Amino acid sequence: MAIEDTNTSPESYPMVAGDGPQSYAKNSTFQKGFVEATKGMVAASIVEKLDLRSMGIDTSRTLQIADLGCSVGPNTFIAVQNMIDAVEQNYQAENQNPSTLEFQVLFNDHSNNDFNTLFKNLPPNRRYYAAGVPGSFHGRLFPKSSLHIVHVSSALHWLSKVPIEVTDSNSSAWNKGNVYCTGFVEEVDKAYAAQFNSDMESFLDARAQELVPGGLMLILIATLPDGIPLSKTIVGKHYDFLGSCLYELAKMGLLSEEKVDSFNFPVFFPFVGEFEKLIRRNGNFSIERMDMFTHPLIHKAQSAEYWVPLFRASFEGLFLKHFGEQVVDQIFNHYSKKLEQNISFALNGITHEEIELFIVLKRN
Amino acid sequence: MAIEDTNTSPESYPMVAGDGPQSYAKNSTFQKGFVEATKGMVAASIVEKLDLRSMGIDTSRTLQIADLGCSVGPNTFIAVQNMIDAVEQNYQAENQNPSTLEFQVLFNDHSNNDFNTLFKNLPPNRRYYAAGVPGSFHGRLFPKSSLHIVHVSSALHWLSKVPIEVTDSNSSAWNKGNVYCTGFVEEVDKAYAAQFNSDMESFLDARAQELVPGGLMLILIATLPDGIPLSKTIVGKHYDFLGSCLYELAKMGLLSEEKVDSFNFPVFFPFVGEFEKLIRRNGNFSIERMDMFTHPLIHKAQSAEYWVPLFRASFEGLFLKHFGEQVVDQIFNHYSKKLEQNISFALNGITHEEIELFIVLKRN
Repeated sequence: MAIEDTNTSPESYPMVAGDGPQSYAKNSTFQKGFVEATKGMVAASIVEKLDLRSMGIDTSRTLQIADLGCSVGPNTFIAVQNMIDAVEQNYQAENQNPSTLEFQVLFNDHSNNDFNTLFKNLPPNRRYYAAGVPGSFHGRLFPKSSLHIVHVSSALHWLSKVPIEVTDSNSSAWNKGNVYCTGFVEEVDKAYAAQFNSDMESFLDARAQELVPGGLMLILIATLPDGIPLSKTIVGKHYDFLGSCLYELAKMGLLSEEKVDSFNFPVFFPFVGEFEKLIRRNGNFSIERMDMFTHPLIHKAQSAEYWVPLFRASFEGLFLKHFGEQVVDQIFNHYSKKLEQNISFALNGITHEEIELFIVLKRN
Repeated sequence: MAIEDTNTSPESYPMVAGDGPQSYAKNSTFQKGFVEATKGMVAASIVEKLDLRSMGIDTSRTLQIADLGCSVGPNTFIAVQNMIDAVEQNYQAENQNPSTLEFQVLFNDHSNNDFNTLFKNLPPNRRYYAAGVPGSFHGRLFPKSSLHIVHVSSALHWLSKVPIEVTDSNSSAWNKGNVYCTGFVEEVDKAYAAQFNSDMESFLDARAQELVPGGLMLILIATLPDGIPLSKTIVGKHYDFLGSCLYELAKMGLLSEEKVDSFNFPVFFPFVGEFEKLIRRNGNFSIERMDMFTHPLIHKAQSAEYWVPLFRASFEGLFLKHFGEQVVDQIFNHYSKKLEQNISFALNGITHEEIELFIVLKRN
């Protein structure tokens, strides 16, 4: 066994560190929406689906919970507390004393995530032992059969890398003139989908080894209605709009066109049907529950003030790496100004909503 | 169960962060000396004393190793690799295939330790799953019976706090005119010893709960020959010399005398016999091995160039907190200049060497 080096992975872009005004810690209300919208479903799934006895919790009494792609908080702390409350409720329902349980929570993100801020913000009177686990969730992170619950929220859409073909000028999937796969070039969409499939396969294989039999994986992910291109949804429109701003900046001479052509977002939103097929094909998990839900903020999110800090907290690291520190402020200023002026245009032509998916898997 | 908040502990002073010229990462040769001097003893203890079969490793095949007070590396990575090599050797000696073993290494230090640097510096092709665990080792850090090996090197001399009496002007243990317990005032020495005893009791109780029966704890700590005051040793002389520099700066008007009076190092070096008694009194561990060794660098360490960066990397955080950022450079500059001029005086009157102790405990 040798653990692969995920430290130098060229494609890990942490959320904005610290807790300053542009930090992820201060600009993750959208991601928080996922956590809050699924609070009841998460709790109910754990109460109903987690068979503590069959996992041997009667004798060992320690539960290991991992939150993958946790960033720096506070959302991860809310999600974790919700899961622990549900486990206790489950245990109590079996006439067991929940105060005899111990929890170890493993907070995972890339090794360049700001773990110092995460640790500083840990809830003071937490009911668990906390650990930070650095590395990519596309590979192994934990020992065999060591986890009882895995939670991954607003994180699985990150690819391990931009598919090679879309930056290759000799490929039919070369994504010149665009920065994403929102449905304009079929080959581009296919290359992105292939990358996502391969990443998900690695992800599911790794988790299958780490979860104990009967262990649960709770996934929150944004998906697309089958056959609907991303460009017809509010999120897709925003990616396209940000792309058009980058090309404007290239025309204005601030960025080279070549640099914009070689830029692509390493994220992907799968079709809901395809996502389900991927899990069934992997074969290590049963699907215990699959619910669609509406993001509680999606309808309020019609303003530039909403989108700009959110995109910046999520993508600043990506932009820094690709375009360099000296232009990042200008990029976001231009994007912000254009979005304020064109918010109705930016939202024009949206025919579908993306589907927020809550899915509960059980390790066979 | 509620995990105590160790985040806001007033008395945790991390080693200097990052990997700049004054960082712990670049100035921990002294601490590295401990690791190197004990490499063979650590390996032999694990090979001889760790009964993998009785701990159930045959079935679970995952070993949990914790390094407490790990700081940011690189010493911790060297120590960890050495332990893993020894476990593999042990396993192989029982005709088992060591490549089937998995290791999870839990790197612990205070939550204001620079875990970001620790994670960045993790060896690329490591043979273990890594996790960072923030918090004070004077309390619980891990679930019950979850660890197989605990390693704590050059860290147990840190107290959880300066004993209250030594900063209380109404106490007979008030340490006015000194910054440490090097043997000039009996009541001060007693107050420090009582704090150390209480801290060690908490430490041993916590580890007793976390280690599996048969699990090993390997301790490397500097101790004193029974009955010899610290001021008669090279390390004690250095603390006293640094104290005299602080009082000089008070006379020069840079620091207030009151501020220096209220300053005390929160570290303690126990008498070797007392340390052994403490462990026996706790009763949760058997002493499997107890060896004294000479620090490989202690005789070379006769120069200011050696001591100043070492003390700064270890104590800058402490000085920052007590005296404020604006004077820390001046304190270390003055100390450095005085030590260069007076190195022979600083080393005068040393009659004994401290005893570097390597001790192996087994959980009953």
